[in-house]
Amino acid sequence: MPDNAKLAAPPEIRPAGANPVLVEVTRGATVESRHRGSAVIVDAAGTVVAHWGDHTQPVYPRSAIKPLQAIPLVESGAAEAFGLGDTEIALACASHGGEKAHTEAVKRWLATIGLGVADLECGAQWPSHEDTGRAMAKADETPSALHNNCSGKHAGFLATAVHMEEKTKGYVRFEHKVQQRILGTLEAMCGLGLGDAPRGIDGCAIPTIAFPLENIAYGMARFGAPDELAPARAAACRRIADAVAAQPFMVAGTDRYCTEVMRVTGRAALVKTGAEGVFCASLPEHRLGVALKCDDGTKRAAEVMMSAVLRHIGVLTRDMQAKLADWITIPVTNRNGERVGEIRAAAAFKG
Amino acid sequence: MPDNAKLAAPPEIRPAGANPVLVEVTRGATVESRHRGSAVIVDAAGTVVAHWGDHTQPVYPRSAIKPLQAIPLVESGAAEAFGLGDTEIALACASHGGEKAHTEAVKRWLATIGLGVADLECGAQWPSHEDTGRAMAKADETPSALHNNCSGKHAGFLATAVHMEEKTKGYVRFEHKVQQRILGTLEAMCGLGLGDAPRGIDGCAIPTIAFPLENIAYGMARFGAPDELAPARAAACRRIADAVAAQPFMVAGTDRYCTEVMRVTGRAALVKTGAEGVFCASLPEHRLGVALKCDDGTKRAAEVMMSAVLRHIGVLTRDMQAKLADWITIPVTNRNGERVGEIRAAAAFKG
Repeated sequence: MPDNAKLAAPPEIRPAGANPVLVEVTRGATVESRHRGSAVIVDAAGTVVAHWGDHTQPVYPRSAIKPLQAIPLVESGAAEAFGLGDTEIALACASHGGEKAHTEAVKRWLATIGLGVADLECGAQWPSHEDTGRAMAKADETPSALHNNCSGKHAGFLATAVHMEEKTKGYVRFEHKVQQRILGTLEAMCGLGLGDAPRGIDGCAIPTIAFPLENIAYGMARFGAPDELAPARAAACRRIADAVAAQPFMVAGTDRYCTEVMRVTGRAALVKTGAEGVFCASLPEHRLGVALKCDDGTKRAAEVMMSAVLRHIGVLTRDMQAKLADWITIPVTNRNGERVGEIRAAAAFKG
Repeated sequence: MPDNAKLAAPPEIRPAGANPVLVEVTRGATVESRHRGSAVIVDAAGTVVAHWGDHTQPVYPRSAIKPLQAIPLVESGAAEAFGLGDTEIALACASHGGEKAHTEAVKRWLATIGLGVADLECGAQWPSHEDTGRAMAKADETPSALHNNCSGKHAGFLATAVHMEEKTKGYVRFEHKVQQRILGTLEAMCGLGLGDAPRGIDGCAIPTIAFPLENIAYGMARFGAPDELAPARAAACRRIADAVAAQPFMVAGTDRYCTEVMRVTGRAALVKTGAEGVFCASLPEHRLGVALKCDDGTKRAAEVMMSAVLRHIGVLTRDMQAKLADWITIPVTNRNGERVGEIRAAAAFKG
């Protein structure tokens, strides 16, 4: 600054207790952007094994707990009654890219239960898979609720409602039995009451309920190591984990973190992304669950955080790390394709 | 957590000196995500008038200083020699959406200087304006360097090089006279030497140089109140400000913050976005410059921060605030179009 600059007093507002910087974005040799957040690893007995930042903060889990939200679909007997396979059950856990394989499968599934796209209450969305969106534009198509990344989850809600002989209309509302059944499942799996928990509306119109990050991880740990749960619930958890492991493409899609990581890790890790920087994992062999939240809600950081936690636990073999290199440290490129920086785990994750 | 949970020790890594939370993202009654950052207001004499967070941190200004990078285009006489109008000069300051009006104007401009799209070294990019991208897909078109949001800035670089009789090839390189001329302009406008400053490569392949946020703001203040600069430079600053005020659409596009704010504020505020959460403003009537950076690089937060700073300074009349309501507090909607939350200025900006 020039010599005549008179500096203002230092700022008063520097809240204590900030979560640590967990991800750095570099350009050249300089850190350009920083992502703070919290992450927690919990075992199936509820013990916090490790954490970064505030693991007690209430977080909206968003789509990162779709595997837990899918439990009633199997546990109720709906999946069996309708003869659903791995594809449908994986789609019930999906935030898919709206690719043809996703939307066609949801469409067929809805027909199986005697319903159609008009029964979906999630709203329409252009596919996040850009090539699919462009192919649709070229064919003069516009997106429907089938292209909503949550359409498989909603098909699962509808299948459960039909099987339970409940009115399907309004199935997204908090008071509907479909949502109340999920609420009860979350309470039991995550070990806390949620009746008075903060509640918001998710992007796909269903309720999302905020509760501590450590409880989200606890639910994911028990999902992957369900032996102490009631037999029907344990069987449902195992069926869902099997379906996701068999059909990782259905859970996300082309060039997507969840699909790529699960293709490489197989049964060792079930990983699931959620909006606003939430990510969950279930690690059955380790009997661990993971939940994390990037404070600022950014996907790129949540992905790098999840990779760092998986490495911390020792889930990723050397070979897996080589295959997933660009999901552990994400390259930053310019529009000529040159690497000009990277999105990497910060020092908080080292050692 | 269940009673048997043994909590791990609190984390060691909580870096001191975090920037304050400046933007909150809510869902229902709960804050779901938080954006930290820094912002500074500096006057044309170099005095720091107000700041939030660390205003001395070096920041890559990215595209937020395009108005300063455009100075040599006018000052060199190139703009006059080629008969450039408001459209071209505004495009030289643009991060445009790749809409037809943008790309056609850049194409015409290149023809005027005897060059074509193959001379642009910025790389190709699908338009950020989604409807334009879909219309292109429908017409079986693929993007060229004209659609790169920086194509107007690059056309300005090429025009300057042609006018100065410099070889145009390699104009994006740090050593090229085009970039060295801009470096010298930045040093003079922002009041510091940049020879040893951290350097990275921008998304469009040109150098970007990190320097303190307060110096970026100082340069923007002098740009808007250039009376103490040399006459040719002062005239260039005024010509650029006039062009941007006359053609705010050319600087960004449909439904874009910069365009919408400048349409409403007229000559009172020149605002310019940059990648990774940087934003600059020049407020000629107040003889002030603004520079801000969202720590995590998020656009939505940088926009809300800029609106909060403009309100703090008193740039936005009550009528302007009404017109810009959705850029001051950005609605969060679900895919049925229902408002389920908002992106708002945090308490740090109040009072």
